[in-house]
Amino acid sequence: MVSTLRDLAQDGRLTELREWLDGHGTLEIADGLARLDPDERAVPFRLLDKGRALAVFEALDPVHQQQLLDALRDERVVELVSAMAADDRARLLDEMPAKVAARLTVGLSAADRQATATLLGYPPDSAGRIMSPDFISLRATTTATEAVAKLRSAGRRSQRSRAVVLPVTDGQRHLAGVVDLLDLVTAPPDTLVADLMRPETLLVRATDDQEVAARLIQEADLVALPVVDREDRLVGLITVDDAMEVLEAEETEDISRAGGAEPLDRPYLAASVAQLARKRVVWLLVLIAAAALTVNVLQYFEGTLATVVTLALFIPLLIGTGGNCGAQAATVVVRAMAVGEVRFTDLSKIIWREALVGILLGAMLAAVGFPLVALYTAVTGSGDWGFAVQMAAVVSITMVSVCTWASFVGGLLPVLAKRIGIDPAVVSAPLITTLVDATGLVIYFLIARAILL
Amino acid sequence: MVSTLRDLAQDGRLTELREWLDGHGTLEIADGLARLDPDERAVPFRLLDKGRALAVFEALDPVHQQQLLDALRDERVVELVSAMAADDRARLLDEMPAKVAARLTVGLSAADRQATATLLGYPPDSAGRIMSPDFISLRATTTATEAVAKLRSAGRRSQRSRAVVLPVTDGQRHLAGVVDLLDLVTAPPDTLVADLMRPETLLVRATDDQEVAARLIQEADLVALPVVDREDRLVGLITVDDAMEVLEAEETEDISRAGGAEPLDRPYLAASVAQLARKRVVWLLVLIAAAALTVNVLQYFEGTLATVVTLALFIPLLIGTGGNCGAQAATVVVRAMAVGEVRFTDLSKIIWREALVGILLGAMLAAVGFPLVALYTAVTGSGDWGFAVQMAAVVSITMVSVCTWASFVGGLLPVLAKRIGIDPAVVSAPLITTLVDATGLVIYFLIARAILL
Repeated sequence: MVSTLRDLAQDGRLTELREWLDGHGTLEIADGLARLDPDERAVPFRLLDKGRALAVFEALDPVHQQQLLDALRDERVVELVSAMAADDRARLLDEMPAKVAARLTVGLSAADRQATATLLGYPPDSAGRIMSPDFISLRATTTATEAVAKLRSAGRRSQRSRAVVLPVTDGQRHLAGVVDLLDLVTAPPDTLVADLMRPETLLVRATDDQEVAARLIQEADLVALPVVDREDRLVGLITVDDAMEVLEAEETEDISRAGGAEPLDRPYLAASVAQLARKRVVWLLVLIAAAALTVNVLQYFEGTLATVVTLALFIPLLIGTGGNCGAQAATVVVRAMAVGEVRFTDLSKIIWREALVGILLGAMLAAVGFPLVALYTAVTGSGDWGFAVQMAAVVSITMVSVCTWASFVGGLLPVLAKRIGIDPAVVSAPLITTLVDATGLVIYFLIARAILL
Repeated sequence: MVSTLRDLAQDGRLTELREWLDGHGTLEIADGLARLDPDERAVPFRLLDKGRALAVFEALDPVHQQQLLDALRDERVVELVSAMAADDRARLLDEMPAKVAARLTVGLSAADRQATATLLGYPPDSAGRIMSPDFISLRATTTATEAVAKLRSAGRRSQRSRAVVLPVTDGQRHLAGVVDLLDLVTAPPDTLVADLMRPETLLVRATDDQEVAARLIQEADLVALPVVDREDRLVGLITVDDAMEVLEAEETEDISRAGGAEPLDRPYLAASVAQLARKRVVWLLVLIAAAALTVNVLQYFEGTLATVVTLALFIPLLIGTGGNCGAQAATVVVRAMAVGEVRFTDLSKIIWREALVGILLGAMLAAVGFPLVALYTAVTGSGDWGFAVQMAAVVSITMVSVCTWASFVGGLLPVLAKRIGIDPAVVSAPLITTLVDATGLVIYFLIARAILL
């Protein structure tokens, strides 16, 4: 499918291109465009009729939107940008060079320009950035019929099916409650909005973190969440589709950090090799600095190592397993914090549970490993069974100690990190693995010295 | 806050308990209950009035719902279960022992029992399991006024603000399109539904994967997605709140596997230590089996190691860094696949890019590392600069090779896994780290032999 769109676009077969576009949905077209080179996208896009073009444009990632606008360079640019919802437009303009953004906003109506500027005035990642400032609010003293008439006269604009929860405000624009469109429609005509509305206790401030707002929408199954300013006046609504986008970005960030990289700010294939490398190099340097500790530990025990070279064989296995235990604990705890299942007050419960899990897992692995290590050492070595059993004891005892220690650290660090204001995902898998490597080696050689020498 | 609820519940201070409940929202109460021991939850729950109790009950996780029902054991149980939406009820019953589930369904109305049984008839993780079977459908030949009258007579039931997108069907219950409630309400009274509806191209089959349905809802910013059966007849709607829940569970699964553990099927604090350990032990055994390779590799090179013990110092650093590079590549690619940015046809692009990123990162680390390794080896060792420079060369060349190889493997394996039907998250960080350990050691010792011996 993709190669077809590309072939058609490159060969300029306009009739077939039009047929292809007619035969595919909005999402498929957006996906197809994203996979073309930036300069190939303008031709198929121009073939879309106006309504379709806007829908496809809205389905593109901001990076691709910007590239497409660069390629179009005509009156359609202004048309597309003004037809966007204010919050989507703010998101697009925010990622553009200031000059380009300024040029684009010139074409907007005064109201649109104002709405966008207001959104961009809120801090990055705040609820204000993603709210919809163009909502319809009702008064508590209106009847259901009057409310419906107000909706009708307001028309649809860019709101689509979003106006399904309507905020109710007083004369000072303070939020009094919300009313469901369905209730408004199915109530007897003379019912007052006051009798239909729920006094709304769930709301956020425009300066609150957008992740907090998104989680609230998710947990309370909301379709829209009211946003108020410092004086508690209603300034916008965050809709569930924006919440899903925020949570997806947040999860991409968590997953990236869990894998030891900063999140990409664009789709994978739209990022250059240099951009990919840049997102990872800082982490690698941090991790390698931590890993340098292992060199020092081993250098300290070089004498022991030279005496019993067999000890070296189990280094990757032991520190690898320790790292895995630590990563498991950290990952589970980071996730439980992200979805709000645990918090700082649960710390003692968490580390106690993780330490127990570590002992349990270490003991199981040690039980399986003891005979295997003894057998392996005896067979590959001199056949000295006394030494083989000693080695097996060293490896098994180290296994239990390292697993317990790693699980403990893996449970502890993310919670502490969050407490002091660091994203817990930062201290997950790779960092803990690396930290546990050095301490694991110390444990291993101390046990080895005690038993073998 | 939690300790207060617990104190009040344990001391049986009912008046204060009631005050506490009045002063907190649904989500806070649900969170507070979840943090109590199972047998402490019944008392505060009984103090809630009927509507509130249902809302709190719906906000609980299925595990906690089940525990609460166990503790209540009276007519309220039937009341709570029948008041749930059919899809939520199916989810709860599905997780109960069959006997308990059967006992509960006895109290349901015939219609509710039928709806629940239908949902449970679809395969696990299918779209049919999470759809709402009690929707209101319209005919294309109805007028807007008649449609609104139909909504009014249908009442609200458990649908809340969900009926904001209404499906339109023909006489055979085939889906003809959907109409937004807002359009229905704001259109002139005599407009036909046919003129208001969008012919719907976005739908899923009841047997489709629920993650596919959820991603579609997210990407197309839908509020509800129609579900049809094998004969294309409309059987339900999936709403955006269910989609968010599916995506959250899916992301928890991905994150768990990225951390080397199977996902928990319950909140972290509700899982026992044994359950936590069980979710991790299989992975640890698989990983340790893979790590056993490293023992064999090192045993094979034991002679080299005995001759140049200094080589052992850099083992954890090198394989750790290789593992980190592989984990970074795998994590980014797994995520890009999960959100639909890349697919199998992009494979050659992915591995080419990842290999380049690996070379770039390896070269940077090698450039930084070369002088440091030379200096460290000379100072801590015999002061033999010739040997120190050779060691630095071995470590640097290994660094570039291992980073390139690890990134390549990290990009390749998740895509291949998905191709053959394995969850790509399974082959992410820990597995790749472990696989790369053994090959990294081979690379290291081959380079060391060539340069040093």
